[in-house]
Amino acid sequence: MDGLQLQSLVTNEGEVRLSLVRVPVTEPGPDEVLVRIDATPINPSDIGLLFGAADMRNAKFSGTGADAKVVAPIPEALRRAMAPRAGQSLPVGNEGAGEVIKAGANAQNLLGKTVAILGGAMYAQYRTMKAADCLPLPAGTTAAEGASCFINPLTALGMIETMRREGHTALVHTAAASNLGQMLNKICLKDGIQLVNIVRNAEQTKILRDIGAAHVVDSSKPSFMDDLVAALTDTGATIAFDAIGGGRLAGQILTAMEVAAVRKMKEFSRYGSTTYKQVYIYGMLDTGPTELNRAFGMAWGVGGWLLTPFLMKIGPAEVGKLRQRVANEIKITFASHYTKTISLAEALSADAIAVYNKKSTGEKYLINPNMGV
Amino acid sequence: MDGLQLQSLVTNEGEVRLSLVRVPVTEPGPDEVLVRIDATPINPSDIGLLFGAADMRNAKFSGTGADAKVVAPIPEALRRAMAPRAGQSLPVGNEGAGEVIKAGANAQNLLGKTVAILGGAMYAQYRTMKAADCLPLPAGTTAAEGASCFINPLTALGMIETMRREGHTALVHTAAASNLGQMLNKICLKDGIQLVNIVRNAEQTKILRDIGAAHVVDSSKPSFMDDLVAALTDTGATIAFDAIGGGRLAGQILTAMEVAAVRKMKEFSRYGSTTYKQVYIYGMLDTGPTELNRAFGMAWGVGGWLLTPFLMKIGPAEVGKLRQRVANEIKITFASHYTKTISLAEALSADAIAVYNKKSTGEKYLINPNMGV
Repeated sequence: MDGLQLQSLVTNEGEVRLSLVRVPVTEPGPDEVLVRIDATPINPSDIGLLFGAADMRNAKFSGTGADAKVVAPIPEALRRAMAPRAGQSLPVGNEGAGEVIKAGANAQNLLGKTVAILGGAMYAQYRTMKAADCLPLPAGTTAAEGASCFINPLTALGMIETMRREGHTALVHTAAASNLGQMLNKICLKDGIQLVNIVRNAEQTKILRDIGAAHVVDSSKPSFMDDLVAALTDTGATIAFDAIGGGRLAGQILTAMEVAAVRKMKEFSRYGSTTYKQVYIYGMLDTGPTELNRAFGMAWGVGGWLLTPFLMKIGPAEVGKLRQRVANEIKITFASHYTKTISLAEALSADAIAVYNKKSTGEKYLINPNMGV
Repeated sequence: MDGLQLQSLVTNEGEVRLSLVRVPVTEPGPDEVLVRIDATPINPSDIGLLFGAADMRNAKFSGTGADAKVVAPIPEALRRAMAPRAGQSLPVGNEGAGEVIKAGANAQNLLGKTVAILGGAMYAQYRTMKAADCLPLPAGTTAAEGASCFINPLTALGMIETMRREGHTALVHTAAASNLGQMLNKICLKDGIQLVNIVRNAEQTKILRDIGAAHVVDSSKPSFMDDLVAALTDTGATIAFDAIGGGRLAGQILTAMEVAAVRKMKEFSRYGSTTYKQVYIYGMLDTGPTELNRAFGMAWGVGGWLLTPFLMKIGPAEVGKLRQRVANEIKITFASHYTKTISLAEALSADAIAVYNKKSTGEKYLINPNMGV
């Protein structure tokens, strides 16, 4: 038995080559199951692995069905960064869901169940997994509903858990109208946590207002900094999670936090407030440099934040609790919305890539690897 | 009894005014002592409080002796930041040393002793202090030798302690030929800690080589990044203390640390290495924005580092140990060098300010408030 798997190869000639490869299906061992993947989302983190630093505007498309292929050049300046990947055809797709169609001796309880799984190589028709790594979905949940159980839900919960563990009581989120951002709002509303949403236009403001967000600040408005200071003063948020990365936004958030903190101080200190302010950069919608004007005293930090090291840090017991909450609330708090469901071959089409590679708010694609290529 | 005290006032008209003010001397209480200040250094942190954001190139000087005065304009754009200081004439001078000339009933043991003190208002002829806050210097130590017992020594020791507490084994220091940098080298050599020194020219390299520094990297050389990667590979340093602040240096250090870490990796990860890399900015020799290109994976942090919060974090018992080490080694490891000793009035002269306000490596002034104004 074999199945199609989407792979991304960086060649020594400086190209990214995407294709569907027929790979043998591994028989499940005693503690394993074989899952037929029926739904797997295209997350920004998947797009990074799919296209790397390739210039997709100059991509070439060929073949149809199982023979669909994409070849795209990597700009000269970015080749060195991609060199470690050269020669390896990597499977793609972080998470997904589907039906358990075979199960090892110790995993018979999962046979026929719809499970959510995390662990790479999900843009494939089949995936063999450890039973312990499968999250069984509540009865009546479809694979499409359970496809995004991990990355966005655990990232949103991870932000809140990080906020708590590092002693903050409210938080800021940028690119806040994203699927992830909407989820974060639903969690915060349910759990009574104050959240300051930073968005880039009026439409995004409306999306969040419509789901009940109390604090939405539009960075395209001239009053942005004043609005942000007001929201930070109201909420006392001193930690932010930034999906943008490049530009001045991280520094602006720290500056606004400092203004809010200084207003509460009784005495002047030329080192600024003693309120510790943190921005974690977890995405790179803007790949340009991060520019910090350091007009925010000395009690601050900026750093990278990534889901996997966070989950390793809190340990399996805590991760288990978070996962269970996601499964329980998958149709409510953690519901994801997709604009379209496509096949593996369609995922390699010019039309689909032009849409999902924009990573636009409100445009998210789901792949069904078994809908026929 | 009264004495002269140097004060810095920010006016509502947007000027910084420096003058010598005759203030009454507070009689020491039962647990206090009165210290005649014989030596107090001009540290970069003092210069910040002295001049604030004033444009010293357009300063006006008047009066002589106890009537010496300086008035300097604050550029329009920087006035808002200085507004919280407006109307307060602040005493200056973080640390110093001198003889205990009066002592309360419970502090008689300190009478006649030379002590080092920290706590502001040291640019003055007299200072009343809690006896517990005085660091008695070993017999045969002059006030000049003990004047810089706190800021530089505790900052250098604090960097090493921070390195240890945060799980790093070697460190990087920028502006490394400074008084503080030389002290850090002496501590590291004595304690067997690997230190990568980043300097800006060949003279600074020589200063550090002459005191035995093993790793000196010159950022003005074309081979800077390669040299830095080599030194980081040798030492395994993953934490840096940066006195510069602005520009690309902090990001270059993180990038070089990441290159050194990736070389040791067996598998490619597009999130970069899992080696956590930290840069603490503790100075602002360059007040421009910090620019981070984020070419260093996701396991990184940049933040502010300040001595006082660090000392509060480790607590009085640990601080006591560090202080005692400084007193014990004040003539060796923690010896400071000054180019000139000046009076309070001279500290307000155009000539002296032109020199000490440059904060140049190797140019450091000491004030003796009792040498006659």
